[in-house]
Amino acid sequence: MDFAPDAVTRDVTARAQDFLDERVLPAEPVLAAQVAATPDGWGTRPVVRELQAEARARGLWNLFLPGPRGGGLTTLQYAPVAELTGRSPRLAPAAMNCAAPDTGNMELLAEFGTPDQQERWLEPLLRAETRSAFCMTEPDVASSDATTIRTRIRRDGTDWVVSGRKWWSTGAMNPEATLLVVMGKTDPDAPRHRQQSMVLVPRDAPGVRVVRPLTVLGYDDRDHGGHAEVELDDVRVPADALLGGEGDGFAIAQARLGPGRVHHCMRSLGMAERALDLVRDRANARSTSAGPLADRGVVREWVARARIDVEALRLLVLKTAWLMDTVGNRAAMTEIQAIKVAVPSAVQQVLDRAMQVFGAAGLSGDQPLAEMFAAARALRLADGPDEVHLASLGRAELRPR
Amino acid sequence: MDFAPDAVTRDVTARAQDFLDERVLPAEPVLAAQVAATPDGWGTRPVVRELQAEARARGLWNLFLPGPRGGGLTTLQYAPVAELTGRSPRLAPAAMNCAAPDTGNMELLAEFGTPDQQERWLEPLLRAETRSAFCMTEPDVASSDATTIRTRIRRDGTDWVVSGRKWWSTGAMNPEATLLVVMGKTDPDAPRHRQQSMVLVPRDAPGVRVVRPLTVLGYDDRDHGGHAEVELDDVRVPADALLGGEGDGFAIAQARLGPGRVHHCMRSLGMAERALDLVRDRANARSTSAGPLADRGVVREWVARARIDVEALRLLVLKTAWLMDTVGNRAAMTEIQAIKVAVPSAVQQVLDRAMQVFGAAGLSGDQPLAEMFAAARALRLADGPDEVHLASLGRAELRPR
Amino acid sequence: MDFAPDAVTRDVTARAQDFLDERVLPAEPVLAAQVAATPDGWGTRPVVRELQAEARARGLWNLFLPGPRGGGLTTLQYAPVAELTGRSPRLAPAAMNCAAPDTGNMELLAEFGTPDQQERWLEPLLRAETRSAFCMTEPDVASSDATTIRTRIRRDGTDWVVSGRKWWSTGAMNPEATLLVVMGKTDPDAPRHRQQSMVLVPRDAPGVRVVRPLTVLGYDDRDHGGHAEVELDDVRVPADALLGGEGDGFAIAQARLGPGRVHHCMRSLGMAERALDLVRDRANARSTSAGPLADRGVVREWVARARIDVEALRLLVLKTAWLMDTVGNRAAMTEIQAIKVAVPSAVQQVLDRAMQVFGAAGLSGDQPLAEMFAAARALRLADGPDEVHLASLGRAELRPR
Amino acid sequence: MDFAPDAVTRDVTARAQDFLDERVLPAEPVLAAQVAATPDGWGTRPVVRELQAEARARGLWNLFLPGPRGGGLTTLQYAPVAELTGRSPRLAPAAMNCAAPDTGNMELLAEFGTPDQQERWLEPLLRAETRSAFCMTEPDVASSDATTIRTRIRRDGTDWVVSGRKWWSTGAMNPEATLLVVMGKTDPDAPRHRQQSMVLVPRDAPGVRVVRPLTVLGYDDRDHGGHAEVELDDVRVPADALLGGEGDGFAIAQARLGPGRVHHCMRSLGMAERALDLVRDRANARSTSAGPLADRGVVREWVARARIDVEALRLLVLKTAWLMDTVGNRAAMTEIQAIKVAVPSAVQQVLDRAMQVFGAAGLSGDQPLAEMFAAARALRLADGPDEVHLASLGRAELRPR
Repeated sequence: MDFAPDAVTRDVTARAQDFLDERVLPAEPVLAAQVAATPDGWGTRPVVRELQAEARARGLWNLFLPGPRGGGLTTLQYAPVAELTGRSPRLAPAAMNCAAPDTGNMELLAEFGTPDQQERWLEPLLRAETRSAFCMTEPDVASSDATTIRTRIRRDGTDWVVSGRKWWSTGAMNPEATLLVVMGKTDPDAPRHRQQSMVLVPRDAPGVRVVRPLTVLGYDDRDHGGHAEVELDDVRVPADALLGGEGDGFAIAQARLGPGRVHHCMRSLGMAERALDLVRDRANARSTSAGPLADRGVVREWVARARIDVEALRLLVLKTAWLMDTVGNRAAMTEIQAIKVAVPSAVQQVLDRAMQVFGAAGLSGDQPLAEMFAAARALRLADGPDEVHLASLGRAELRPR
Repeated sequence: MDFAPDAVTRDVTARAQDFLDERVLPAEPVLAAQVAATPDGWGTRPVVRELQAEARARGLWNLFLPGPRGGGLTTLQYAPVAELTGRSPRLAPAAMNCAAPDTGNMELLAEFGTPDQQERWLEPLLRAETRSAFCMTEPDVASSDATTIRTRIRRDGTDWVVSGRKWWSTGAMNPEATLLVVMGKTDPDAPRHRQQSMVLVPRDAPGVRVVRPLTVLGYDDRDHGGHAEVELDDVRVPADALLGGEGDGFAIAQARLGPGRVHHCMRSLGMAERALDLVRDRANARSTSAGPLADRGVVREWVARARIDVEALRLLVLKTAWLMDTVGNRAAMTEIQAIKVAVPSAVQQVLDRAMQVFGAAGLSGDQPLAEMFAAARALRLADGPDEVHLASLGRAELRPR
Repeated sequence: MDFAPDAVTRDVTARAQDFLDERVLPAEPVLAAQVAATPDGWGTRPVVRELQAEARARGLWNLFLPGPRGGGLTTLQYAPVAELTGRSPRLAPAAMNCAAPDTGNMELLAEFGTPDQQERWLEPLLRAETRSAFCMTEPDVASSDATTIRTRIRRDGTDWVVSGRKWWSTGAMNPEATLLVVMGKTDPDAPRHRQQSMVLVPRDAPGVRVVRPLTVLGYDDRDHGGHAEVELDDVRVPADALLGGEGDGFAIAQARLGPGRVHHCMRSLGMAERALDLVRDRANARSTSAGPLADRGVVREWVARARIDVEALRLLVLKTAWLMDTVGNRAAMTEIQAIKVAVPSAVQQVLDRAMQVFGAAGLSGDQPLAEMFAAARALRLADGPDEVHLASLGRAELRPR
Repeated sequence: MDFAPDAVTRDVTARAQDFLDERVLPAEPVLAAQVAATPDGWGTRPVVRELQAEARARGLWNLFLPGPRGGGLTTLQYAPVAELTGRSPRLAPAAMNCAAPDTGNMELLAEFGTPDQQERWLEPLLRAETRSAFCMTEPDVASSDATTIRTRIRRDGTDWVVSGRKWWSTGAMNPEATLLVVMGKTDPDAPRHRQQSMVLVPRDAPGVRVVRPLTVLGYDDRDHGGHAEVELDDVRVPADALLGGEGDGFAIAQARLGPGRVHHCMRSLGMAERALDLVRDRANARSTSAGPLADRGVVREWVARARIDVEALRLLVLKTAWLMDTVGNRAAMTEIQAIKVAVPSAVQQVLDRAMQVFGAAGLSGDQPLAEMFAAARALRLADGPDEVHLASLGRAELRPR
């Protein structure tokens, strides 16, 4: 057992840290101004384009992706990079082309795509020329259970015809998004986990309608492409639009989950670290007649508890990443569920208290805390509510041995 | 000791409940549509005007205000009405002309205003023809401590000249708002609690600039007039613009706090009750393969704990109201602090769990939960963060006896 | 609605407070010394006898019991007296003949007993000449569900023959205990809630064996008669030993629960108040280089939260008592469940923190905190674990309306 | 970074697990019977002697001690062994001669003792022929701050004369204890951390009086030597009784803390694992009309949260051990404080819920839960209350960077 990061990790995190400090954090007010100047826009702002060019130049590009197309990093090596990007969640992941949901979609295309699919969809995504959305959640069924999905993918001649209604399709409001990765049922009579398939749908295909944006605690995340409700009304795609084989949809979705959760959790821990940085500055700068906030016992105790939680949970996420690298996602399922539940709620709590230290300013757009709070809160529901995962973990733990 | 509400309370709450069920709740989608149709507007929407007419016709008008100008209700009698309005927080308080911050401003004008001030400012507010804002919090000082305020009110001849910067001036974005009640220092050398005065400033006075809106967790509350940053640059008002006497500002602000907190807390409990209603419907309607959510042990336990918290805290708020009516605000200070701290955080927790029951829909604008969550969260900072009140309560409790 | 206690309540609580201050609290070290001097004894110590004489002289005797035999108090009037006795839980309830389980047994005998049963069992209990135990919980079944009880009460000629195994029979180790009130099944084939009967068994009847004492977090509560495992091996009692009618056992047990829970909860709140008194003294007396503990923000916040919880929960218990007095136990079932769940866990938390303020001394027998902690902890399981009541409350709350 | 245990760790934990399963767990009822048979005894019971012989034979002896005298294990390698011993906390640590406070005392003697001191005191301790106590905490000062200690160690000729009052001297009730390691002040005028020295006092030296045992939540821990109040009344020891140099006391005490906390925390996690084992068995065996407890959502969620906490905190403790091995105790101070605070309270919570699953049996001596609960609760105060460490952690975290 060895808790020291290896040389590759040390190198890449040092470079990511420099990029963050030198370029990304100073660009935050620029993004705010560009968003304010184009309030109706849903896509990538110019400052992100500039940062992307810089990130490519620094070799900080597509690091999430294992193998030659990406950074060649293991999950464990990439994890601390993901954490660093979480410190500036609206800018850093996008700047380094490591932002969900494109990351997950690129992973799927890299792992399950045919050469043609990769040529058409993956390459432009890897160059950040296009964006994509993942269309799984539906308004009328429990999103935690992929087997309840109602969207149908029917065969018609050699084509597939897709019909259904999706929501929380992150990124789909973005006009740069050209691809929707859609999960639906090709065979409702097949065994429970073989009914689903995944299909690649051009966002401009006839029958696709991006109905409306959804908000998360008041945020529409418009500079990141928002969260859309999407209607698919007899959308026709050719036979080779299927990702993987017929009936592989559930398995492909599962494959997407493991790395995604490690990334989400590490970014969340990065948000917590950012919050602690902000709290440190504020608590030293802000005084009342009783002295600086940093001298208050209650503030110290909050901060101490935050530090403890972040340290313990980071180790749990890193161990999960290590398990995924060494024994595979399936064998790491308990840990993947554990971090999914534990990290976002702990980070939400850290952010809640950080907002309290900042007073009303903490709730406003003047600080990144409120928006990060909304993001952490949303993670407690993404891929199904925490309670579903806790029940599953608890059932496994209680199984007689 | 008698826990039964009196006849007046029973009558007025029955009527308020009817109004809520028959008119207000059905108007919620109307408001949403009107806001969507006028996305740039900051003021009262037509549906609120209609409801106001109906509320006046039903004798449900200005009930928050004691005495002949209002409903003639005691704080204790009004409290359950305030709770009912909390069930539809964007509509019901405004419909019944019982919405903060106008309520507090009307109370001040009714209690401390001269006949001329009442004629000019109070009467149109009581008729809901105008709106008002309360300008106390400042960006650069701890809002929990009124003695740190930097805004200056200098005498110049017979005029007063007001200079300073305020924020979180709720309602000030609303073009219908004509009055700013501004707290500032008339004499920084006076004893600590005699330095402040309160002045009535026309929103259109030269030197007043409404700088920008602020958001609360992503919400700008635009149909209610938003939360503004306001600059006062040598704003000149005549001698009779002072509310109360010179140096009375702190005492007047304190007078405003007691009833305001009871109202806020009762409305919050109403939000919790609304959430429980929504959860009940959802938990019975939504099923997975494991049966309806209403049969889940975890959901049942959440709901039970919510019920217990709401019942216990409601009694504490009602006792606080009773104390204010019988022994006065000053003698009820411990209880006023207690409810300020206890109710919003408990309600935030109820709403957090309710959102979890609803899944991602709970975070969106499709349900009122997320917006109510933001409101409850903000109350933990309004009038100073909870921690200030806890420290004060704890100090009093630890005083040797 | 009126939160002022009536004249009867004010009078009796003032007298109880005087008795507590003048006689009971000073007797605590005397009890400790008497227990230390007779480590093998399980019964009432001499100092309790002296206090009992004094309590009778002061008219503070059997106040728990409504009607002419007791104090003539309503549940609501008695509740604050119960709270006061909780401040010295090993002495005050016993001193005033208001200690469980004798209180519950006396209530049952007063309400359901025949004149002969009252003559034989109730009168000496009311004079504190004898003690009693309530034998309901069994080792092998869920104690929360009276319908699962295995003890059999079989008719044999005109006699009843009782066989079974009970535990957590509080008071049964006490040699002064002469009566066991035993719940068992007279007809396992009757409807679910008509199978049980309650029978009065002399503790010295052939076949009764007090097997062993049980401990609660290390405490055996020996000066109060302990908690016993009791074996009943074909114990024969005459026909008139049945309390109430055949099949009335479940209903009688339910009748016992309501007042018992109010009493337990109020005594628990008294323990919390005692803890706050101790913390106040300690926090002012104890200093480190950083000043007295009373100046620590963390301690202040703990104490403030404790004060809020105690105030809110006391009101909920008092309202429950008022409901029992005005609409009856059955109509107050939700509230009775609510206080059962909410009060002990809140008080446990208050005591946990109080121990923390006291350091290791708080865990020891040098302070009453640890023993009160154990008592509060046990209440979360008495009459069935909290979770059973939460589930029931939640189910009721989620029932469609 | 590598989360796989090394070969040494795998070997020793496998052997410790076998010993636990084959010998220790089956001996638990034997110990209970032996304690019951000798209720007045304070020392090691025969079954422990037998287990000790077996542990020596299996090479599971003194594993806590680094270097040739012990098991030659690093802190990181020993940590999982310590966890295993926590599964049977009254037997396993003693059986393997790895029980506090003897472990800490042996460490000090091995690191700071002269050859003569090691010969006289360390060797018999390593053979478990004698026992020892560590006398640091005092009744009248804050135990968290070693600089406030009042015990005096005065030079008188070549002798040292020790006077003071200690309490919570664990093991000192045990007649087999021959050594008291006593901390006192040799020079109250020296710099703050150079005033203290540590002296080896024979328990039978004239002037030593073991005053009385203390209890922890009702437990006196008599089979482990209890927790004593000890009076030292002009106890005279020779010059060479000083451990380390004059003024080294504080530094020596600090050296003792690091490994001790890792051991305590790992044993606590072992208690949590034992509790989870017991809960698993109980939840599957116990049914009500609603089915087995293992099917309850609430139980599953408890267990899941416990699993998550245990996994995350174990990693934090292991990382702390690794830091101590690689960069030293001083550099690991933040982590040592973090685990001190985080682990016992999490384990207390796990045990609290486990008791709830067991019903009243969980509170009694029929299950090990209640006694483990008391042990975990005590750890929140051992070496100073959690709050002291949280304040220190928080202060460090808030230091401007």
